[in-house]
Amino acid sequence: MTTSTPVTIGLIGAGRMGAFHAEALARRIPGARLGAIADPAPGLAANLAKTLACPRHFSNVEELFADPAIDGVVIATPARTHAAMIEAAARAGKAVFCEKPMAATLEEADRAIAAAASASVPLQVGFNRRFDRGFGSALAKISAGEIGTPQLMRSNTRDPKLADPARIPQWTIFLETLIHDFDTLNWLNPGATAVEVYAAGDALIRPDFKTHGLLDTSVVTIRYDNGALAIADASFQAVYGYDVRAEVFGTGGLVTAGDLLATHTTTYTAAGGTTSTVRSDQELFRDAYISELAHFAECTRTGQQPSVTGHDARAALTIALAAIESIERGVPVRPRAAFATNV
Amino acid sequence: MTTSTPVTIGLIGAGRMGAFHAEALARRIPGARLGAIADPAPGLAANLAKTLACPRHFSNVEELFADPAIDGVVIATPARTHAAMIEAAARAGKAVFCEKPMAATLEEADRAIAAAASASVPLQVGFNRRFDRGFGSALAKISAGEIGTPQLMRSNTRDPKLADPARIPQWTIFLETLIHDFDTLNWLNPGATAVEVYAAGDALIRPDFKTHGLLDTSVVTIRYDNGALAIADASFQAVYGYDVRAEVFGTGGLVTAGDLLATHTTTYTAAGGTTSTVRSDQELFRDAYISELAHFAECTRTGQQPSVTGHDARAALTIALAAIESIERGVPVRPRAAFATNV
Amino acid sequence: MTTSTPVTIGLIGAGRMGAFHAEALARRIPGARLGAIADPAPGLAANLAKTLACPRHFSNVEELFADPAIDGVVIATPARTHAAMIEAAARAGKAVFCEKPMAATLEEADRAIAAAASASVPLQVGFNRRFDRGFGSALAKISAGEIGTPQLMRSNTRDPKLADPARIPQWTIFLETLIHDFDTLNWLNPGATAVEVYAAGDALIRPDFKTHGLLDTSVVTIRYDNGALAIADASFQAVYGYDVRAEVFGTGGLVTAGDLLATHTTTYTAAGGTTSTVRSDQELFRDAYISELAHFAECTRTGQQPSVTGHDARAALTIALAAIESIERGVPVRPRAAFATNV
Amino acid sequence: MTTSTPVTIGLIGAGRMGAFHAEALARRIPGARLGAIADPAPGLAANLAKTLACPRHFSNVEELFADPAIDGVVIATPARTHAAMIEAAARAGKAVFCEKPMAATLEEADRAIAAAASASVPLQVGFNRRFDRGFGSALAKISAGEIGTPQLMRSNTRDPKLADPARIPQWTIFLETLIHDFDTLNWLNPGATAVEVYAAGDALIRPDFKTHGLLDTSVVTIRYDNGALAIADASFQAVYGYDVRAEVFGTGGLVTAGDLLATHTTTYTAAGGTTSTVRSDQELFRDAYISELAHFAECTRTGQQPSVTGHDARAALTIALAAIESIERGVPVRPRAAFATNV
Repeated sequence: MTTSTPVTIGLIGAGRMGAFHAEALARRIPGARLGAIADPAPGLAANLAKTLACPRHFSNVEELFADPAIDGVVIATPARTHAAMIEAAARAGKAVFCEKPMAATLEEADRAIAAAASASVPLQVGFNRRFDRGFGSALAKISAGEIGTPQLMRSNTRDPKLADPARIPQWTIFLETLIHDFDTLNWLNPGATAVEVYAAGDALIRPDFKTHGLLDTSVVTIRYDNGALAIADASFQAVYGYDVRAEVFGTGGLVTAGDLLATHTTTYTAAGGTTSTVRSDQELFRDAYISELAHFAECTRTGQQPSVTGHDARAALTIALAAIESIERGVPVRPRAAFATNV
Repeated sequence: MTTSTPVTIGLIGAGRMGAFHAEALARRIPGARLGAIADPAPGLAANLAKTLACPRHFSNVEELFADPAIDGVVIATPARTHAAMIEAAARAGKAVFCEKPMAATLEEADRAIAAAASASVPLQVGFNRRFDRGFGSALAKISAGEIGTPQLMRSNTRDPKLADPARIPQWTIFLETLIHDFDTLNWLNPGATAVEVYAAGDALIRPDFKTHGLLDTSVVTIRYDNGALAIADASFQAVYGYDVRAEVFGTGGLVTAGDLLATHTTTYTAAGGTTSTVRSDQELFRDAYISELAHFAECTRTGQQPSVTGHDARAALTIALAAIESIERGVPVRPRAAFATNV
Repeated sequence: MTTSTPVTIGLIGAGRMGAFHAEALARRIPGARLGAIADPAPGLAANLAKTLACPRHFSNVEELFADPAIDGVVIATPARTHAAMIEAAARAGKAVFCEKPMAATLEEADRAIAAAASASVPLQVGFNRRFDRGFGSALAKISAGEIGTPQLMRSNTRDPKLADPARIPQWTIFLETLIHDFDTLNWLNPGATAVEVYAAGDALIRPDFKTHGLLDTSVVTIRYDNGALAIADASFQAVYGYDVRAEVFGTGGLVTAGDLLATHTTTYTAAGGTTSTVRSDQELFRDAYISELAHFAECTRTGQQPSVTGHDARAALTIALAAIESIERGVPVRPRAAFATNV
Repeated sequence: MTTSTPVTIGLIGAGRMGAFHAEALARRIPGARLGAIADPAPGLAANLAKTLACPRHFSNVEELFADPAIDGVVIATPARTHAAMIEAAARAGKAVFCEKPMAATLEEADRAIAAAASASVPLQVGFNRRFDRGFGSALAKISAGEIGTPQLMRSNTRDPKLADPARIPQWTIFLETLIHDFDTLNWLNPGATAVEVYAAGDALIRPDFKTHGLLDTSVVTIRYDNGALAIADASFQAVYGYDVRAEVFGTGGLVTAGDLLATHTTTYTAAGGTTSTVRSDQELFRDAYISELAHFAECTRTGQQPSVTGHDARAALTIALAAIESIERGVPVRPRAAFATNV
């Protein structure tokens, strides 16, 4: 509990995830208030602002950046626009929370990081699993040395339902889905760096879109410089719900995180036992989504750097880009080097 | 999401549970605002009001009742004062949320119910398990007929740590702890009424306080008019945390609810598998506590009766009182009849 | 592994359980051989003997007792005949394994125990849960002090399907079903003695047989002289299978035993998660049944007393008889004293 | 139950696994008897034969092959000798059960298969997971179509403890450990064929033996011709025990198999929850090992082909060999074609 004045956050992008963040900012986070919403789609920002009693809304994001009442922004626009939005927000002196991926290329990522550094604003990227209690507990075990040095790792993301495949940009499975797993693996292997990436992928849900470049299912093997071998897998359609789990096996043991069950209520009938499964990210990670924004609000207030930074996002991106190159070339690929601090 | 004006709620009793409710009202429930805090203990209300930016605080609850800005009250005072507080609040025209137990005698309970009915104000009692997602899912299964007619039922409450036994009023285990289980069993056996209660109890944690009337461990058997045999058990000290579970076995199957684990992260080392357990009610039932107040705020706004009423609280109380009589007489006891609507 | 000569065991009673034991003796227990089968039902012993290549079969059990090749007997006859069978077998100098219950009255039990003592033959009773790996592991934890002194205990037996209620002897639920739970509770509370028993029971599966004395569902509360409060419950019909579980809560923690699942294979589909449940005692306790007979064979060979004796069976019986008296009188009942060693 | 005459099986190789199989043949499998043991190590066969009351033992396997009383053989010799042993046994007209791997090269495998076919003897390979109840249940779900077409698969083998790395032949992790996973993945993806294999491996447990060719940790990605992407991983040292699990994710859902827990007894203390883990293959797969030999005994008796054949073993071997080539070349590799029937 704190008596500090709440910070005022502006939302950029009023789609599904943006609306969720906006509602959290407006109602769930004591240290934050929702000050403005910007979205170019006609009426979208206005409607959401009305629902949430948000004082201002814009169809032009520049107006939001120009608003001196806004301390920080949450960027929930389409992925390809993220890096430019970060740069603009940083130049406007706003603290920045950006949904993943931070950027689609390393050059963009470097510019975004540099912009935030130059403006001395906090830059946080939306790797929400880091704020999940179960995943956090796994990291605590690893950091405490309970399972020793990681040797075999797993992380998976299986979304509930494939959206219209015609509207899915190429490489989405790496840049927007598996990017979560790449960050999780990096985070659960503290201090290690990915040195080799091999990816296999296919259009198994909609094979008719394979010639259009769709990959809806993928497995990625990553080798780290501490020897750990990691596997990330993803599918765009798990009919049983939203399936996010991870495992880290090390010299001292194994830790598992993630839970498929919506509640632990179990029913046993003549047919056997039945349980209910988690059906969406906003169901599974509701608390984590709120916690990451609460952290961002706190960083906006204090100016401190968030616990998950642009550098973390860039590290995950190097793996995603290596995976893409691996798919294209059919061989394992070495990720490009980490961000050079003298850029 | 709603654009309605929030209702203004006053808190009465700024102790452990009161402070939790106050923080929820002030920060977690979009439809509510915390308007005032009353507590006779010097400084308690003022301090909490300052922390939560609550505009008013009183040492005299009458002032809170007299405040026309207050739409409803949350009563979190010591149990023996609940019924009188409900009566006073109802007379003042406030919607009432009261922590369990609603009353210590049936006469008090009847007066409280009658006062709320006479004033036409909502009266909700703090049976928070009804707002827990897992327990709610169990009820949904039962109501859908998936396990048939209940035949054997279990519910337990094991608190983490015995407080100072010298300060625990006699019969607390029935009136304040097992009352949750009695309500849960009633709720999970829809339409049925308890017709026989047998209780066994002892001071096993602090046998030195047995002569002072302490019961810190108890088992209660309840027979319902639909034949179901139910067992409630309680302990004041589960060293592993806060243990609340229930099971309903019926003609068509079994449903279990409740979960001992804090997260489903599991660690496997040379010593075997380890998990972490839930350590407190506010950890296990955080969402349920917030949901019950959100429901109360909505009832305050609309004037509708809550889903858990004074009549429900009275039904649980009849079982608690029968359990006390069973302990005193050493035999099974028939609970007193349900509230007569013409009282 | 051992090179000892196998002992020769005779089976008395070739029904469902007898046939299971016979198959184990004939084929699954290296230290035993099945030497004879006796059953008065025409053809039953002969057919089973043929199937199992058992050298001898009798319709008159006296012939089996008279057979000098038989080292020990397994008694799997109807419950009411057990005590007399034990006496006769002991007089014939045979080691005795008897299915539970050992006797229907304490007088019978005392005579059976005395007969075995007088003949210096081992006497083991079929409390198979003591040989289950999971239950054994729970005892090991308790004996090691990991959960401290027991305070609250649970044990349940829910059979898959009610047999013809017209053929179920009165009090079967206590003498043949809950007797397992009474033994389990005694065993998991080492050194403690039951001092008070309260039973509630009903005919909920077949209420039409209630007037014939059927009890098909029951809850029994037991108070031990170390303070522990225990609950046993039973049903004759769990549509999901065979449900045997136990819990012991003590000053230092909680231990749970028993598992409803047939395998830990779990299937997740659009409908949620599904598992398969254990369907019969012979499925759940297959290994335990074989282990108890292997132990009996070893005791037969060495002459040592088994780990589960006539005195254990008598202690469980005193609880069952107190439960019956509690049902008849409607009040809690003190069990009769333990076996006096000078009988 | 059957009254058939047991078949007589000879054991070749009296090491750890051979001794386990011998004990099962001698004592646990009604349809089999252990007729002879052969092992060149001085005294090994004689000692085991004495312990198990096996009538004959040889230091020269040719004598066992020449023994007309022997109907079939169990080959549990070092892996490099398997194929030659199969050929010799088949030529001697014996039914053959061979531990995995059946062979170290495809040429050897083809000769072994051809020898068994030519002699018209059953040839079974020791893929014991196929006889595990949980894994079998997973296959049943898959075969019933409950999870649709496989898309993402996982299988892992983590052994409890690395043996002396100086005595581990190169590629053991593929030929002797992951071969189980390759077979499991093939089996759980009925009708599909592996078309691409990528392997990453390292010496993480004993990096000092990496220059000697040790791989003690590996991840293998397999693409099947039905599109499924599968991952197998292995470690030679899981300090928590023996970890064998699998998952199959498909168009209709997910099925998981495998269980880390020795029993489902759980203890909760002030430190949290604890469980015990499975510590060895012979603990986890005891029943499966016995079942596979019972199946072999039955095939020996009837002459029918086993449910897991030389062709299955060859299919797993093609994946292992492709994994080895992938390690050597650093790229994904296409496995060699399936056994040509006209070889």
